Amino acid sequence: MTAFSQTVALPPGTPAQAGLAVLLPALADLYRDLHAHPELSMQENRTADLVAAALRAQGWDVTEGVGRTGVVGVLHNGDGPVVLLRADMDGLPVREDTGLDYASTDTGIDPDGVTVPVMHACGHDVHVTCLLGAAALYAADRSLWRGTLVVVFQPGEETAQGARAMVDDGFVERFPRPDVCLGQHVGPFPAGTIVTRPGTLMAAADSFRIRLFGRGGHGSAPEHTVDPIVMGSAVVGRLQAVVSREVAAGDSAVVTVGSFHSGHKENIIPDEAELKINVRTFDPQVRNRVLPAIRRVVNAEAAASGAPKDPEFSPLNDFPLTVNDEAATERVVAALAGAFGSDRILPMPRPLAGSEDFGVFATAAGCPSVFWHFGGADPAAFAHLDLTATAALALPEGVPTNHSPQFAPVIDPTLETGVRALLAAAAAWNAAS
Amino acid sequence: MTAFSQTVALPPGTPAQAGLAVLLPALADLYRDLHAHPELSMQENRTADLVAAALRAQGWDVTEGVGRTGVVGVLHNGDGPVVLLRADMDGLPVREDTGLDYASTDTGIDPDGVTVPVMHACGHDVHVTCLLGAAALYAADRSLWRGTLVVVFQPGEETAQGARAMVDDGFVERFPRPDVCLGQHVGPFPAGTIVTRPGTLMAAADSFRIRLFGRGGHGSAPEHTVDPIVMGSAVVGRLQAVVSREVAAGDSAVVTVGSFHSGHKENIIPDEAELKINVRTFDPQVRNRVLPAIRRVVNAEAAASGAPKDPEFSPLNDFPLTVNDEAATERVVAALAGAFGSDRILPMPRPLAGSEDFGVFATAAGCPSVFWHFGGADPAAFAHLDLTATAALALPEGVPTNHSPQFAPVIDPTLETGVRALLAAAAAWNAAS
Amino acid sequence: MTAFSQTVALPPGTPAQAGLAVLLPALADLYRDLHAHPELSMQENRTADLVAAALRAQGWDVTEGVGRTGVVGVLHNGDGPVVLLRADMDGLPVREDTGLDYASTDTGIDPDGVTVPVMHACGHDVHVTCLLGAAALYAADRSLWRGTLVVVFQPGEETAQGARAMVDDGFVERFPRPDVCLGQHVGPFPAGTIVTRPGTLMAAADSFRIRLFGRGGHGSAPEHTVDPIVMGSAVVGRLQAVVSREVAAGDSAVVTVGSFHSGHKENIIPDEAELKINVRTFDPQVRNRVLPAIRRVVNAEAAASGAPKDPEFSPLNDFPLTVNDEAATERVVAALAGAFGSDRILPMPRPLAGSEDFGVFATAAGCPSVFWHFGGADPAAFAHLDLTATAALALPEGVPTNHSPQFAPVIDPTLETGVRALLAAAAAWNAAS
Amino acid sequence: MTAFSQTVALPPGTPAQAGLAVLLPALADLYRDLHAHPELSMQENRTADLVAAALRAQGWDVTEGVGRTGVVGVLHNGDGPVVLLRADMDGLPVREDTGLDYASTDTGIDPDGVTVPVMHACGHDVHVTCLLGAAALYAADRSLWRGTLVVVFQPGEETAQGARAMVDDGFVERFPRPDVCLGQHVGPFPAGTIVTRPGTLMAAADSFRIRLFGRGGHGSAPEHTVDPIVMGSAVVGRLQAVVSREVAAGDSAVVTVGSFHSGHKENIIPDEAELKINVRTFDPQVRNRVLPAIRRVVNAEAAASGAPKDPEFSPLNDFPLTVNDEAATERVVAALAGAFGSDRILPMPRPLAGSEDFGVFATAAGCPSVFWHFGGADPAAFAHLDLTATAALALPEGVPTNHSPQFAPVIDPTLETGVRALLAAAAAWNAAS
Repeated sequence: MTAFSQTVALPPGTPAQAGLAVLLPALADLYRDLHAHPELSMQENRTADLVAAALRAQGWDVTEGVGRTGVVGVLHNGDGPVVLLRADMDGLPVREDTGLDYASTDTGIDPDGVTVPVMHACGHDVHVTCLLGAAALYAADRSLWRGTLVVVFQPGEETAQGARAMVDDGFVERFPRPDVCLGQHVGPFPAGTIVTRPGTLMAAADSFRIRLFGRGGHGSAPEHTVDPIVMGSAVVGRLQAVVSREVAAGDSAVVTVGSFHSGHKENIIPDEAELKINVRTFDPQVRNRVLPAIRRVVNAEAAASGAPKDPEFSPLNDFPLTVNDEAATERVVAALAGAFGSDRILPMPRPLAGSEDFGVFATAAGCPSVFWHFGGADPAAFAHLDLTATAALALPEGVPTNHSPQFAPVIDPTLETGVRALLAAAAAWNAAS
Repeated sequence: MTAFSQTVALPPGTPAQAGLAVLLPALADLYRDLHAHPELSMQENRTADLVAAALRAQGWDVTEGVGRTGVVGVLHNGDGPVVLLRADMDGLPVREDTGLDYASTDTGIDPDGVTVPVMHACGHDVHVTCLLGAAALYAADRSLWRGTLVVVFQPGEETAQGARAMVDDGFVERFPRPDVCLGQHVGPFPAGTIVTRPGTLMAAADSFRIRLFGRGGHGSAPEHTVDPIVMGSAVVGRLQAVVSREVAAGDSAVVTVGSFHSGHKENIIPDEAELKINVRTFDPQVRNRVLPAIRRVVNAEAAASGAPKDPEFSPLNDFPLTVNDEAATERVVAALAGAFGSDRILPMPRPLAGSEDFGVFATAAGCPSVFWHFGGADPAAFAHLDLTATAALALPEGVPTNHSPQFAPVIDPTLETGVRALLAAAAAWNAAS
Repeated sequence: MTAFSQTVALPPGTPAQAGLAVLLPALADLYRDLHAHPELSMQENRTADLVAAALRAQGWDVTEGVGRTGVVGVLHNGDGPVVLLRADMDGLPVREDTGLDYASTDTGIDPDGVTVPVMHACGHDVHVTCLLGAAALYAADRSLWRGTLVVVFQPGEETAQGARAMVDDGFVERFPRPDVCLGQHVGPFPAGTIVTRPGTLMAAADSFRIRLFGRGGHGSAPEHTVDPIVMGSAVVGRLQAVVSREVAAGDSAVVTVGSFHSGHKENIIPDEAELKINVRTFDPQVRNRVLPAIRRVVNAEAAASGAPKDPEFSPLNDFPLTVNDEAATERVVAALAGAFGSDRILPMPRPLAGSEDFGVFATAAGCPSVFWHFGGADPAAFAHLDLTATAALALPEGVPTNHSPQFAPVIDPTLETGVRALLAAAAAWNAAS
Repeated sequence: MTAFSQTVALPPGTPAQAGLAVLLPALADLYRDLHAHPELSMQENRTADLVAAALRAQGWDVTEGVGRTGVVGVLHNGDGPVVLLRADMDGLPVREDTGLDYASTDTGIDPDGVTVPVMHACGHDVHVTCLLGAAALYAADRSLWRGTLVVVFQPGEETAQGARAMVDDGFVERFPRPDVCLGQHVGPFPAGTIVTRPGTLMAAADSFRIRLFGRGGHGSAPEHTVDPIVMGSAVVGRLQAVVSREVAAGDSAVVTVGSFHSGHKENIIPDEAELKINVRTFDPQVRNRVLPAIRRVVNAEAAASGAPKDPEFSPLNDFPLTVNDEAATERVVAALAGAFGSDRILPMPRPLAGSEDFGVFATAAGCPSVFWHFGGADPAAFAHLDLTATAALALPEGVPTNHSPQFAPVIDPTLETGVRALLAAAAAWNAAS
């Protein structure tokens, strides 16, 4: 690891342009190392150590253990705005199937104590690498910018725990309060392109577990029981109407029952059923309608069955909406278009149904935020597509998406794009000139 | 009608055996006349006039207008038990399709004010004819019996109104209190046979209308509405589990939603849905479980939909269980076997799902009752069947059932069997010797 | 009617500005007359006569009876583009409840032969009035424009019949082929404002009737039947998942079962159930997914019930998507902003779920089309709202929407706005200068 | 074990009456030993060894390993009928909770390789003990009977495997063909009583596993998936109507979905759902209607979902109807009434919903069979009940049923009743006099 803290630091005074050329091979090595050694959410110890060592070698003021494994770097450069740049660090319990020579074979121990394979199947290794690259350039070339930079390496994004853990650990009070929060995510877009939109960018997600209580008994005597499988099935059926009848055309919500478990033997009626539900919404008003409607349906179906006990709802996790400030996004898009050419900045025609906890920082700090996606897929796969407008959401056959066991961003030009996008976006606030 | 009052009366002293031979052609004429002129429930004016005139001509003490159109005849013959014999008089709103030359072409005005065709599709014309025949024989031959006879010609059986109307009109107080109530029904069994069983003979039936309240609106904007068609459909779906999960194997219940009406235009979400429900049970405990369960399900599904108002339940009609007293049935079966030969008395293997309000009289009077079915179908259709045990419920292809537009009992030997069955069953109590 | 043909015509040479001032009182009278005498779809005889007489008095070349009651006027003014302007003429079977002194008390005979109240509950009387006003100004002031104008007064928009009937009657071949089609609709927006958007403006609507075939029988013996109410309820329940599971977040579809009818009596299981379904979509791909999915669900639920016969689908009506050509809309919006000030042109944030058959003309003619909504509601009701962006879809409490028995556009400035909007939009193509 | 083979054998010539008095303490010891050492289905090795040793010590001609662990004993005594007496030997994977000092603490390895607690929770230890007792008496007292006795100790009744395994292993061909098969089961009736009925005594049971195939994907994008949880829930909902609409009042069926498993994480739509279904019927015609109806519903619901692959049905087990031959049952009941007094022979008012594979032997041999239940519960618990007629099915609060972890038959008079019932019932065929 010492190696990386050396190689991803530049001599003070190295101009950014030249520095980037020097850095890129080292960043590629770092990326391959991170990719080979992913860690589960809130257990990003090796990654955090590596990040902290590198930041220190570059000259940042580093704080570790913020929200368990989070790392924060601060760098001052005279008067000027405070810009926050964020990367997330965690991998996923997925068995890698990329065939890469730097593929992960590591395992981790999940919250239930089970040993599971781990993979950087969501590209957070790319995020860490790019932000460390940008940090190196900022630290080496003070002529580039002014004000204060705060770099955040966040744990536990996949479980919606990390950003909140850092805020709960005093993030806002302990570090310079940002004027803007910037973040990025690699995805199945052509490498070299950047995709974003003002307003709602990604869905809010609310997940919870529901226990439905029946009364078990012999399979031949249902009259002495309250059948939780009939109850749970009625819940699932009836929840469809929450989406189909309570969400307006033009609004959207997704209500997924991802898990239904009840019973073991065919001739025994079980006592309980357990459902796990995930809800995606893009608008707080829709969310405020859908969540209580689900609860209403579940309670009513338990009543319809004559359940001996009310259903039990327990939260699993919840992600806020990711909303790009309109004015700030305009600044970022203009800056990115300036840096990359406007043909590489693709408008996103509508929000993604995926979710992020990036918004937690800006909400806590009371400042605007902007988030963007950048491509990690081989551009050749998109050659036949017109990448304007809605094509930004086209997914060619065979391009693996995030969370897939085959997810494997191409290193070049993905890393370079990610580093330069951070610098360009921040420059819309802190450019020295 | 004068004609019938003459022809179905016998000179005093005519012995029963000889009287029956004389009577049968007149009863056949009477039957054809009744069949051609059916009347809707609680509107049996012509029939009641005809019955009252005939009874008076025979010498009975007659009271008319009991429970609107009911007729009661009383005849005393010294000391002895009081035996009640009952026939029902009403027809059905069915367009006759028997092709008989005495088929009905009459119409009536139903409770909604609509003109409808009327048919004796349930054989109550047979019941009236047989009871008037028995009445003639009793009146003519006092040597046959002792005690008191009460003959009841009841209105409105089909709507479960008539027996209750007569009881509400003071039946128990105004007439001799019976020691036993006897009644019979013609059905799709071989003519000449009699079918019954001790204990539960026919189902209880409870019918009600449910109004489900939603909130209407434009078909393109369900989010502003509470869709009563989705609500009603969920009710129908969920009611199936009342039968499938709350009624034990070995018990039985039938829950039928016979009518579902909501909305007019495809692009307007209506305000309400109306369901009509009919419930058959064979056991008070099952009934006490099923009826509240239906209410529970309906209320819960309204809650699941977020209904602005609770569902409204209004009763349509209810029939009691028809239960044959065990000891009294044994007496009746023995008497019938003596009169007809035991091979013509078929055991009924289990209760019928049809319903009757005959039980209202015995319940009000606090006495046992016995009810039996007798065949009206051409015996040739059953030639290939073994009519013992369960075969009593076999229905050969092409034999029309009660309520069918083709229901047409054969006159011979149906009428004779019905007359003799009444005399034989009553004789188990009031035989003179 | 003669009166109107006189009063809504102007002396040749009257400048538009002056002409409008003169015309407005006459248009208001005409409007009140039309409002008081609405006619059902495809029966717009009085309205068509009045329109034809007025156009002739103004100097247009008039053809009547195009697609039954449609009226087409043509006016040439030298070389230049052909611009089509369209109004629809039919009322609705709604009992007016506006309390206006010119409220309709007229009735009509609907396609089932039933006499029904009729009301201009959708504002087509406003459309006719405004287009006749614009026609008068065009005819009087030839200095205003060049090329050819085609004014179309269409029957049967509410039933999706009229535009197709005119096209089927040779509209494209018999009249000058338009370079652009323009149309407008009055709605519950502040009077004086105009609302539109490029791209999809209004939903496609597909409506059909489904007959589900069961097998009827006695309510106590479901085992001899196939219960169509259980079948229909399962269809309704399962259709919810077409929307909730087969339409992506960000896309939209509405599937409404607006009518469910089966059975009459609680104790008779009926033979059939009839559903009427209305489907709204905003994208041909979504429509191509949803319509077959509905058919798949209906057929499968019939199979699940063991139906003796496949369900029967019969179309009721279908409306195409209303799609505003991007470039043409840009021209129209610019022209309207020039005429009214840009603060009175409100962007529509997303498509409306309502539907129109206006698109049929442009599709048949192979030209672009633009449609816009203009306000008919008292602006005072919107005083507290910020009418930018999404507020264009805000509906203050108490403002009646189209199809409501209370729908009553304010005459001023609604009529003037409608007339001027037509002139301004067309001028983007045919302005003389 | 040697001990038992000594103690449950009697000196030749011991009269039955005296022999029973001697045997009972030894049988009680044997019972406690068997109870403490239960074995899982088809693994009854220790029990089979013990049985075979005891039978040999008594003088029977013994064959082991019939259908894996089955034991058959044959004894000839001159001319006369061949009577088969059957006991089953297996325990259940239940953790005993009786508090008895001879409670089981043994474990076994189930078919999935999992170590599970084992308990004689269904009383098969009583059956083995009683049949060995009867065998001892038969062997010692040849004056009691004539003809041939076949005693069958069957494995794997709980899994419906054992009787079939023995028949498949040549049971009918290898041993004397019985004229009648007799069997008994201990249950929650008052100890000392015997309960049975002619005709159907216990239900047929058919169990199977259903795999429903969907297409998995991200929880936020159901449009790319076929949701197997929605599909499975629709199956469960729709199956209720098989019972409620396709089984006549008076007939019975129970369709239980005892297990529903699909998915793991809330935000991942799984690929499959697995249901386990158990069906109880009491009549082959009902069974022949219900089983195909289930298959029809499952296939149709898969089609409604647009499943990429047909559902997969795999049988888990099936039990035949247990039907008591009418004439043979009359003989048995008369014999039992003679032996015990008629007040201790309780009629069973209707079939039990539980199931047995006893019928397999008689079906294979083509002879009549009779099965009865005998009480194992403390009679004090029933003191307040009238044990005639339907009371035979009354279960007082606190009396544990078969399969309960608290199931603990009282030893006295249960064992004596079981031994004497076998002798008395068989004597209806093979009494020496």
